[in-house]
Amino acid sequence: MRQARFRDPTGATRTGAWHNDGTLSFGGDVYDRDAVTILPPCEPSKIVCVGRNYAAHADERDEELPDRPLLFLKPPNAVAAHGDTIRLPAGKERVEHECELAVVIGEQCRHVDSAAADSVVRGYTCLHDVSNRDDQDRETNWVRGKAFDGAAPMGPVLADPEHLPADATVETYVNGERRQHGTLDQLIFSVPDLIAEVTTYMTLEPGDVVSTGTPAGVAPLAAGDEVRVSVEGVGDLVNPVARAEQ
Amino acid sequence: MRQARFRDPTGATRTGAWHNDGTLSFGGDVYDRDAVTILPPCEPSKIVCVGRNYAAHADERDEELPDRPLLFLKPPNAVAAHGDTIRLPAGKERVEHECELAVVIGEQCRHVDSAAADSVVRGYTCLHDVSNRDDQDRETNWVRGKAFDGAAPMGPVLADPEHLPADATVETYVNGERRQHGTLDQLIFSVPDLIAEVTTYMTLEPGDVVSTGTPAGVAPLAAGDEVRVSVEGVGDLVNPVARAEQ
Repeated sequence: MRQARFRDPTGATRTGAWHNDGTLSFGGDVYDRDAVTILPPCEPSKIVCVGRNYAAHADERDEELPDRPLLFLKPPNAVAAHGDTIRLPAGKERVEHECELAVVIGEQCRHVDSAAADSVVRGYTCLHDVSNRDDQDRETNWVRGKAFDGAAPMGPVLADPEHLPADATVETYVNGERRQHGTLDQLIFSVPDLIAEVTTYMTLEPGDVVSTGTPAGVAPLAAGDEVRVSVEGVGDLVNPVARAEQ
Repeated sequence: MRQARFRDPTGATRTGAWHNDGTLSFGGDVYDRDAVTILPPCEPSKIVCVGRNYAAHADERDEELPDRPLLFLKPPNAVAAHGDTIRLPAGKERVEHECELAVVIGEQCRHVDSAAADSVVRGYTCLHDVSNRDDQDRETNWVRGKAFDGAAPMGPVLADPEHLPADATVETYVNGERRQHGTLDQLIFSVPDLIAEVTTYMTLEPGDVVSTGTPAGVAPLAAGDEVRVSVEGVGDLVNPVARAEQ
């Protein structure tokens, strides 16, 4: 099953079924997708991200492979939904796309063994790790670079785990042209290993997100672009791009 | 006025007045502090912290002074209250105390000019930036080092701004002995400058926290210690220290 959170025409927030015919349903009502506002698929208290988890991306950034997951954080102000406009921060020259598979956590958990990690996964979604390189490349903790408002569009769906192939493609398309491509079997640290590592240090809450890193092919976004982050079996996250005025 | 959040004997969560005679009051009822559970003074969606904001501390860590605020993040899982036990993460040798003045934000805000920053400050509290150096010193983004569960005890009070002297002392006492000492007039980046810088990138929400960095004197904690973070005019945040079992 694939679900989406949305605001229906009466203003109610619903979590309903996402259908391939362009509709959503909840409580016996059927909605055309265009008639509702798609919301982020969950409301994370934190997004734990992973850097350099595909060797080809570390290589294109001229960086060494980490000996353990390179963790960084996106707080709730970074969350945005399918369809929301990505605003390139004012005055920043190089803001790049990064497509990622993201794990949505289903229950409060800590000290999760990697062998048991599947049990805390509610499902999967697409995450766009919008990255402001102007700042990222001159700070150690990537706050200005990765945690600015709207730096984590997610969605549109939360897909049950069985929809995700072990070698699912993770891709970015900009204005219809493929820019990034990788497959999940290339991950240096697997989803269970990431959950085990993160929960060694932190409690994860229902709706929290662990994002798994981006494959090679990152490149700058420009005002007017339309970006699609596509994860095979999960869905397509589409966002237009504009320049912020301040 | 100084306020504290607490859980009263019926289980209700209250925000009441903190009195110097050892009592709290809410709605005409007066409670002995020892008869209630003190809660964190706010529920931040994020804590934005600042590194190397006192020259003497940067010097003792053998680090250069930043040309703009060094920002890092603590998510909600880091929050703890006055009286909660600080658990030293299992297997980590060097977990150090860092006393800080923390700003509690009063309204949703972005693009706040430093000249207007006072208007978004709800008040001040004490924050203990518990720092796991074993991991911090080998990661760029300080997630394992600074964002682990319980790494941000805060409180006990939220003090109105008028209680804070411009040259307030910020200190740590371990088992009654002073370990850290600084004064707010030593801050490299002032509170208004920090709020302006953070809100250039991020929306702050009511209850969010901006913590202002630590003065010189950091040193390792040990199981059995009692740590007191003291900010002149604001209050004293006291936490016992134990070793986590896993």
